[in-house]
Amino acid sequence: MKELLDGVLQGQIRAIARLITQVENSSAAAEQAVQVLYPHTGKAHIIGITGSPGAGKSTVVNALVKTLRQQDARVGIVAVDPSSPFTGGALLGDRVRMRDLSGDPGVFIRSMASRGSLGGLAQATASVIKVLDAAGYGYILVETVGAGQAEVDIANAAHTTVVVEAPGMGDEIQSIKAGILEIADILVVNKADRPGADRTVRSLKMMLHLGPVGGTRKSGRISSTNGAEATTNGWHIPVLETVATEEKGMAELAVTLGQHMTHLRQSGEWLLREQERSWREMEMLLQRRFMRQLQAQVPQELRERLLTAVAEREVDPYTAVNQLLSKSTENP
Amino acid sequence: MKELLDGVLQGQIRAIARLITQVENSSAAAEQAVQVLYPHTGKAHIIGITGSPGAGKSTVVNALVKTLRQQDARVGIVAVDPSSPFTGGALLGDRVRMRDLSGDPGVFIRSMASRGSLGGLAQATASVIKVLDAAGYGYILVETVGAGQAEVDIANAAHTTVVVEAPGMGDEIQSIKAGILEIADILVVNKADRPGADRTVRSLKMMLHLGPVGGTRKSGRISSTNGAEATTNGWHIPVLETVATEEKGMAELAVTLGQHMTHLRQSGEWLLREQERSWREMEMLLQRRFMRQLQAQVPQELRERLLTAVAEREVDPYTAVNQLLSKSTENP
Repeated sequence: MKELLDGVLQGQIRAIARLITQVENSSAAAEQAVQVLYPHTGKAHIIGITGSPGAGKSTVVNALVKTLRQQDARVGIVAVDPSSPFTGGALLGDRVRMRDLSGDPGVFIRSMASRGSLGGLAQATASVIKVLDAAGYGYILVETVGAGQAEVDIANAAHTTVVVEAPGMGDEIQSIKAGILEIADILVVNKADRPGADRTVRSLKMMLHLGPVGGTRKSGRISSTNGAEATTNGWHIPVLETVATEEKGMAELAVTLGQHMTHLRQSGEWLLREQERSWREMEMLLQRRFMRQLQAQVPQELRERLLTAVAEREVDPYTAVNQLLSKSTENP
Repeated sequence: MKELLDGVLQGQIRAIARLITQVENSSAAAEQAVQVLYPHTGKAHIIGITGSPGAGKSTVVNALVKTLRQQDARVGIVAVDPSSPFTGGALLGDRVRMRDLSGDPGVFIRSMASRGSLGGLAQATASVIKVLDAAGYGYILVETVGAGQAEVDIANAAHTTVVVEAPGMGDEIQSIKAGILEIADILVVNKADRPGADRTVRSLKMMLHLGPVGGTRKSGRISSTNGAEATTNGWHIPVLETVATEEKGMAELAVTLGQHMTHLRQSGEWLLREQERSWREMEMLLQRRFMRQLQAQVPQELRERLLTAVAEREVDPYTAVNQLLSKSTENP
């Protein structure tokens, strides 16, 4: 493990890949790795990229990485989107497009499988991001899909969240309403050479203008510890147009990402987001540890008997939970 | 509270609405209510309806409710979809369409706002479903959006999950891959009068045929207690065509819902899903209780100091969690 961690800190690709596998499969390994690597994190610009399937997120990621690579930055990609070519859910064309990236030693690609347990995916993603951060990747792109709670959790791991839309994807207004604007720092209308692109850009700008603070948006990131709302202190969410298949608009996107980073640092938002991310992560760790402890303390047979009783309406879930908890404090 | 609970068991609309508000706002009220109501639950057919924004989910819900009402069944609607007209995120046309439903005393509509905390929405939804079940609604439709973890959690609260797609929504294959087929018991291609509907139906059928068990699908619902995979024991996922705006295909959808219910009961899948739902709910309750306990035991000042130390990379999250836990066991 020691050797592996040294390898990661030196940026050795094979060490990184092996450590990530260990971290994903064992929470003990995750704990050990994070404890050593943590002081070396906090340098990467973590960028969440989300949007509806079909908007061309993966192509945007692909083109953006090429642009960032021209600036000599090392780039890590974490794909949590089951429809992404990075996770293997690709059409043939996407796979071919991906191949030039995966041959580049300055690009590290990791796809995350969906986990069964509540919050398991977000937890694993957080650990993988830390490994890449400590390994010296200057940019870490996290690709997710949709606007569910899990995506919001993962977006919260990012400094900058880019939401990718495309013209003519059903009713834009519906899609905009679907909570996705809440998490956007930068909006991208991809496939901007298609008919209807202007209309999509206009309606997005209108939605932003109609937002709660008249053009300036609330960040939607509320600190769990003090309950106060953090605002982005005057960051006006830009609406950019790209044609990712032709790598158009990518330089502007890269510049805007840098501007957002500067804004975060200068406004103090950076520390707020770090604190919130820390809290979410600690909350997940606490809950997992607690569940493990409970499983160790309460005999499996009792757990299963209670479960069947609840399913058959003989015991209600609250009473069952009380019984479980009393058993776990009885045998410490 | 006693009076309110009696009112709910008698199906009084105002009592139901008031109790739901209490249950949403106070976990003590939720506990008290569920303990009384739980023995009266387990009778409703809980139907999850999900799909991409723009597929016409709300219109399908609307038309389906009308069909179910013709059979004299009482119907509860729980809208967790931020783009749904039931939650207020509606276009004008949708709102007008909704209005005839909300005037019907046999239909109860409740929209759920998104919660900040991990799993908070799924927890609240589970309680609201129980209230409606105990109040005697024979069908409870739960409308969600997308395929994130939160949606999967909410879909797991349903006996039958209906996934609504529409022709020409970007690349169908992408959208299919986005995890959504994993949770479908019934597929609906809405707007089936539009060009491209045949192609969408064909590609969905092909995807199902290519599935892991050759036409018969794994349910994707894995029991947390024994780790064994539950299969649907031969339920072939049907692909139905509807034009919800004209109420076409709704009778067939209603019949198919009934067939799925019969299948669940006869195959033993019913109890498996109940057990799994019970476990998920108990897990959520346990985690929330644990976090509350921790907050009560550890001084806020210490929590905030640790949080800042983590954000500033002075302490890693695992060490911080260990410190929190040692404080909480010191002062029991």
